[in-house]
Amino acid sequence: LKSSKSIETVSFVGSGNVATHLAVALKGAGVEVAEVFSENTENAKTFAIKLQCSIAESIQNFKMTSDLTILTVPDSKIVEVSKLLPDSDSIVVHTSGITDISVLNGREHYGVFYPLQTFSKERKVDISEVPFCIEANNENDFNLLMELAFKLSNNVKKVSSDQRKLLHLTAVMVNNFSNHMYHLAQEILENNNIDFDFLLPLIQETALKINDVHPAKAQTGPARRKDNSTIKEHLKMLNEFPEYQEIYKLLSEQIMKKYHE
Amino acid sequence: LKSSKSIETVSFVGSGNVATHLAVALKGAGVEVAEVFSENTENAKTFAIKLQCSIAESIQNFKMTSDLTILTVPDSKIVEVSKLLPDSDSIVVHTSGITDISVLNGREHYGVFYPLQTFSKERKVDISEVPFCIEANNENDFNLLMELAFKLSNNVKKVSSDQRKLLHLTAVMVNNFSNHMYHLAQEILENNNIDFDFLLPLIQETALKINDVHPAKAQTGPARRKDNSTIKEHLKMLNEFPEYQEIYKLLSEQIMKKYHE
Repeated sequence: LKSSKSIETVSFVGSGNVATHLAVALKGAGVEVAEVFSENTENAKTFAIKLQCSIAESIQNFKMTSDLTILTVPDSKIVEVSKLLPDSDSIVVHTSGITDISVLNGREHYGVFYPLQTFSKERKVDISEVPFCIEANNENDFNLLMELAFKLSNNVKKVSSDQRKLLHLTAVMVNNFSNHMYHLAQEILENNNIDFDFLLPLIQETALKINDVHPAKAQTGPARRKDNSTIKEHLKMLNEFPEYQEIYKLLSEQIMKKYHE
Repeated sequence: LKSSKSIETVSFVGSGNVATHLAVALKGAGVEVAEVFSENTENAKTFAIKLQCSIAESIQNFKMTSDLTILTVPDSKIVEVSKLLPDSDSIVVHTSGITDISVLNGREHYGVFYPLQTFSKERKVDISEVPFCIEANNENDFNLLMELAFKLSNNVKKVSSDQRKLLHLTAVMVNNFSNHMYHLAQEILENNNIDFDFLLPLIQETALKINDVHPAKAQTGPARRKDNSTIKEHLKMLNEFPEYQEIYKLLSEQIMKKYHE
């Protein structure tokens, strides 16, 4: 890519949730989605129909004529895929939180285009709020990737591989582990014929609160106030769920330590 | 209270966050806040000025002339306070998640008025969305409490003490434990000079997503897809935080079990 040019065409290797959400957003921003390849041929077809793009029959036959090639394959496949792709001037980026930029150093132009958000088929995400973490192997490609990301989102940052890995680790904590709490709560309530929807306003408020209040200050509840009798009663109520008891115990101990040691 | 009358005046024992949020909402709904007592005299004064009500100098001098007396004292004080309060026709309710209605059975009229939400000074909560769990020792008082709660919220339900305890237990999980995850994430990121605000859109989306998607289906991430190499790398990154490592390990194991056993 010449330094004056911006990214006008994009292709995808992989056709899952991240690929689909990104491709739809890019197309909406006036970027052409040219080509897709996926080992999951059904997914690839759905993607190609939705984005009206061509399908490569194999990774070796990928045309690679787009300004940018976005890899949304599993982390363990990134190196292999980047080596199988034909030589080209196309910038090759991965979208992984945990993978170092250096795994792509067999390419001439490479980088990272990491959207820090949870994507699923069932929900439309407001992409303009999604933080994009950008990295590239040279300044010109970096600027092109930044420019592209800003077409999608107001929240685009230069983030090093080490910083991105820490964001990914903490994203697992705030997303996967919080969602696991919702899952346990839902199980316990349904087991007792109580509607899980009772908890939805509390769940929303818990997440919204930290927009205004530091999480250390936002904490409340029995462990925060060292209310051992409530903790004891809750643990007793969890007798039929020994695994959840273990989580309750460990987390309560750690919260108590934070505020009472 | 005669069965035809509705609750028109309310008094509070306790003057913390729950008392203040409830009192402001009740006043806004046209209910008179008449009297407050709190062992924390500073808090009581602030409350009395804000709500323009009288202050009792001791619990024994509490006038008890309101239709309803709301106890927002610590759980361990509810029985004692309910016994020290003068005899009266006033309905005495507590606002505790974990405390059985029966602890108030020394009174003639009693019940539970439990708002299932997290309240703090720093944030205004939309009370019309807060689920209220209502219980009373007789049908007339129950109806009066339901009527009053519906003046504040669209989400008012009859909930037994046993059901309420389960809601309280699961509220601790989805609120306190999720907030603890935010707290750990914030600590890890600040420790590495990374802005915690990066995670806010993800945190909001995690909570909003379960309005549309069952928490079991909403789960994503390394444990969900049994991505052992990412889990191993995350655990290594947590070497300097052995306690957080323990949480990461336990929760990842349990998520993996849910989906891969």
